[in-house]
Amino acid sequence: MNIESFFKLSYGLYAIGSQLEGKKAGYIANTAFQVTSTPAQIAISCHKNNFTSKIIAESGFFSISVLHKDAGADLIGKFGYQSSANIDKFSGFKHTISENGAPILQEDCLAWFECKLVKEIDLGSHILFIGELLACEVINTEQEPLTYSYYREKRKGLSPKNAPTYIESAHIENKQEKPETETKGKQYKCSVCGYVYDESAGDHKHGIPGGTSFENLPEDWICPVCGVEKEDFYQL
Amino acid sequence: MNIESFFKLSYGLYAIGSQLEGKKAGYIANTAFQVTSTPAQIAISCHKNNFTSKIIAESGFFSISVLHKDAGADLIGKFGYQSSANIDKFSGFKHTISENGAPILQEDCLAWFECKLVKEIDLGSHILFIGELLACEVINTEQEPLTYSYYREKRKGLSPKNAPTYIESAHIENKQEKPETETKGKQYKCSVCGYVYDESAGDHKHGIPGGTSFENLPEDWICPVCGVEKEDFYQL
Repeated sequence: MNIESFFKLSYGLYAIGSQLEGKKAGYIANTAFQVTSTPAQIAISCHKNNFTSKIIAESGFFSISVLHKDAGADLIGKFGYQSSANIDKFSGFKHTISENGAPILQEDCLAWFECKLVKEIDLGSHILFIGELLACEVINTEQEPLTYSYYREKRKGLSPKNAPTYIESAHIENKQEKPETETKGKQYKCSVCGYVYDESAGDHKHGIPGGTSFENLPEDWICPVCGVEKEDFYQL
Repeated sequence: MNIESFFKLSYGLYAIGSQLEGKKAGYIANTAFQVTSTPAQIAISCHKNNFTSKIIAESGFFSISVLHKDAGADLIGKFGYQSSANIDKFSGFKHTISENGAPILQEDCLAWFECKLVKEIDLGSHILFIGELLACEVINTEQEPLTYSYYREKRKGLSPKNAPTYIESAHIENKQEKPETETKGKQYKCSVCGYVYDESAGDHKHGIPGGTSFENLPEDWICPVCGVEKEDFYQL
């Protein structure tokens, strides 16, 4: 138990985890915040359509891992833009399982909390889960927490549609700058996660060599970050 | 209405305002966060002992002003550490009054929101107020928002006792560094707000000249930031 974990909280980005009968679920939240100090309670806002919300409600426990500034795009993409209904998001990432079954991410993050669900508040599109703190630890004192503004401004990330801070992309597209890297090929941006496909660089993750035009990408090619299809990209 | 105001939110510091029958109330919150996007709802956590909580509950409206990085210590001290039961905190600071009576701070901040109270959740020591957005504006695009970590780490501020993030000072005192300014006099730190009385500098606000020892301060001298008495200071 390390109460300094609370100093790591910010309007940042967190990986939430929960598990029910062997089924792990998780997602990226930007709303995790301490709401009382005695006892310590933390609130998270979760979209009703989010698979994890069902798992939290039924299992009664959840974890919060505080992502750090350099958290990998693959982790953010998997946790933020795919559904736990289809995949085990924790697979491939270092994690532990609490006594109560909550999976707790242990890489790309600097602190974590485990909470027991004590209240659920229906807010329309979202459920606010209130959790009482069971345990918390700091696991990395070197890195800074990843804040929402840093993610948005420096890493050019967008909110997933289910996030409480989601705003129709039409409002913000014209505010997004082009990437600073110098390139010769055309660039296409994922409208979901902000990933940019650069024709001159290709897509190493999917074995697409540099010089492959967007048009010539296989029809089943998907965004290497969030997994959406070609039709969700637009040219920069 | 400027939806970009939401981009200014962070786990930062906010001045909350409300008014009932001519009585204005306000306080500093570090928990103001968007919980749903359609409709836009914002949650704030307010201690039950906080005078403003009664005013919000009875008036049904509240404002949130996003403080910027250089927000004055006098404003933070007044809003964060004094009680609206005794004083009009808005007096002396530029503010407007909404149609619904909510006072909205217009200085030392970069954006504001006005909300209609739609739900109150009893969390024990605190009440979580859920507000539906009525209006919001950006009033300063130059400054950055004041984040909680910046306030704590760079400005050496502490949480007021009623804040959800309050942690007994014994846990954090040994983590607080001494101020970087070079001085010859002894220094005494306010255990409430973190203000440091430096004997060689004195206290200009209260007309105390440099060279006045802490011992020789008048018995009715109070912290120029938060208004607590001498007994709440300890020597660094």
